[in-house]
Amino acid sequence: MKGVIGRIAPGALITDITHGIPAQQVAAGAIVLAQSSSYFRARTVFVAVVDPGVGTERRAIAIATRAGSIFVGPDNGLLWLAARAAGIERIVELRNPRYRLTTISSTFHGRDIFAPAAAWLARGTRLEALGPRVERIIELDPAAGASEDAEGLHGSVIYTDHFGNLITNLGRARVEQFAGGVSHARLSVRSKGRAPIAMHPTYGEVAAGEALALFGSFDLLEIAVRDGSAAERCGIATGEAITVSREA
Amino acid sequence: MKGVIGRIAPGALITDITHGIPAQQVAAGAIVLAQSSSYFRARTVFVAVVDPGVGTERRAIAIATRAGSIFVGPDNGLLWLAARAAGIERIVELRNPRYRLTTISSTFHGRDIFAPAAAWLARGTRLEALGPRVERIIELDPAAGASEDAEGLHGSVIYTDHFGNLITNLGRARVEQFAGGVSHARLSVRSKGRAPIAMHPTYGEVAAGEALALFGSFDLLEIAVRDGSAAERCGIATGEAITVSREA
Amino acid sequence: MKGVIGRIAPGALITDITHGIPAQQVAAGAIVLAQSSSYFRARTVFVAVVDPGVGTERRAIAIATRAGSIFVGPDNGLLWLAARAAGIERIVELRNPRYRLTTISSTFHGRDIFAPAAAWLARGTRLEALGPRVERIIELDPAAGASEDAEGLHGSVIYTDHFGNLITNLGRARVEQFAGGVSHARLSVRSKGRAPIAMHPTYGEVAAGEALALFGSFDLLEIAVRDGSAAERCGIATGEAITVSREA
Repeated sequence: MKGVIGRIAPGALITDITHGIPAQQVAAGAIVLAQSSSYFRARTVFVAVVDPGVGTERRAIAIATRAGSIFVGPDNGLLWLAARAAGIERIVELRNPRYRLTTISSTFHGRDIFAPAAAWLARGTRLEALGPRVERIIELDPAAGASEDAEGLHGSVIYTDHFGNLITNLGRARVEQFAGGVSHARLSVRSKGRAPIAMHPTYGEVAAGEALALFGSFDLLEIAVRDGSAAERCGIATGEAITVSREA
Repeated sequence: MKGVIGRIAPGALITDITHGIPAQQVAAGAIVLAQSSSYFRARTVFVAVVDPGVGTERRAIAIATRAGSIFVGPDNGLLWLAARAAGIERIVELRNPRYRLTTISSTFHGRDIFAPAAAWLARGTRLEALGPRVERIIELDPAAGASEDAEGLHGSVIYTDHFGNLITNLGRARVEQFAGGVSHARLSVRSKGRAPIAMHPTYGEVAAGEALALFGSFDLLEIAVRDGSAAERCGIATGEAITVSREA
Repeated sequence: MKGVIGRIAPGALITDITHGIPAQQVAAGAIVLAQSSSYFRARTVFVAVVDPGVGTERRAIAIATRAGSIFVGPDNGLLWLAARAAGIERIVELRNPRYRLTTISSTFHGRDIFAPAAAWLARGTRLEALGPRVERIIELDPAAGASEDAEGLHGSVIYTDHFGNLITNLGRARVEQFAGGVSHARLSVRSKGRAPIAMHPTYGEVAAGEALALFGSFDLLEIAVRDGSAAERCGIATGEAITVSREA
């Protein structure tokens, strides 16, 4: 992909955001993209590919935003959260063969379709040149899975980072709304068959080796272990349900 | 290596192709280099290091190609496949001490020999300045291990990518020649003691969790599992023999 | 972090040194930084983050060196070895809010404090503008753990690289001083309950699959296996004590 971009847009600066999204985990990719893209400068072209089934039917799209950034990737929900945050302005389907490689493999759309589109856009090619307008795309809001009942606020672990921190789909605003003014220190996070994990503002408030819940780098609730791996110590995996509750 | 390149050729754009070639697997490195280098722009200098035994005797070389690219690395077969595809024009051995670091460690030729050579070449230093002409280098053709008999077309898994796809040394042309006009859909891939895996044009043709064989990003036959890891599900590892056969 | 740097210093060239330091292993980070930073060109700004407990109290600092480079990161010993080698000139604490992101998370100081500071410094902002002078910082010398007695020279494994090589805290100078003119070939390395491993100048002197001790890319003593992984074959892990002794 970088070779293709460099051929079309030799002056473009290419930055890797992550190669660490687990295969097929579109929701994890959507969150990482949404949370990191806001830190890049305006007019950045973001290319993202996480596919639940490469070679299956889904459109290739590019989204121009009001913030001036452009998102390029599959229409499977991956781009939606980030693009919505930046303000969706126009969407096109990447169908113009002029802006693709001449041979399209069935397994590597990143190289053959998305990278060339991103490079042409970085060079200044107009979005409309790449293909026809699209009105609706797949909307995937990982936080939409959250729900609240008498037991508490229910969410799930959507991503395990390389420190072993378990990142959930519950954002700070959603948790604070649930807490209704109750201090973080009186909230705890439970998962099936395990002891509740108390919430704290920072790592510094627990001893080494102890688990805690806190808001992480992207203001998402995460379960962590000070100086350790929550994935290993707590035995909780991506996909597992968790519940935030107020202490009695 | 990047620090060394940046000191010698401050304006050079450095792109990582992969850090994922398993240690000592020269054939896997040779294929990835051959398949990806053709996507970069002309006049790119490629540096590659995969060594079966660092510190053992083998020459350090640079190869200029008719396509205008230059390949720098060990003379152990790693560069040959890529350089041949680009058209080998001239080869030199990297012996001029002026274009090396002053202290050469026995374990990190990438930093001490290859990176400086690549940086000087990127700056425009003539190939001939780096050392004496070489006429013959080691030729390593991973596809040369393929053979055909009554049972079918025999190859092997040469690389397992980070999705768990098993990439073989059988290219599309070789398989199609073997098939002799028979549709892909009537070919299957077997490995010792396991059920045959049917070949398909794309992932979309099998159910989630099902194994298939298909041509991957680099037109090499690979064994994959839709929405999963073939390495895990099929229990096949790098180095294992596989056979393509026509259905009865 | 790269997004933040690119917004503040659009022309800055960003190079990844490593993302492979194990979580919390400040000594491993300190050594890799010290050993690799000397290969970069003068006036490079190095940003490093390895934290034993993110969100706990420790200062954020920047160190200007006589070599012209600047080191930015936590005051936990991580930067000290590299900065000392380049000649510490001035140290400041990163307290000026003008050179931080407006919202500081408790878990991602790399993005919110270190990356902006590094970017402003790369743009030419004076060190003194970033905060008040600091006179003393935490000094962490991984080699300080080495000691010598009748049994031999004692050190420990501080880092396991991705080839499975076990890198110790014993530098070439320290080992040669201990050897007192005795040839490398008469030294061996022992760890508890395992057969001694002979020292050799290069990999080439042992057979494939055999373990050896040698000086690695950074002139640190390491235990390796030719064409294999010492971590796997020898069963030695990061943190384990090792002893260099002269053969009887």
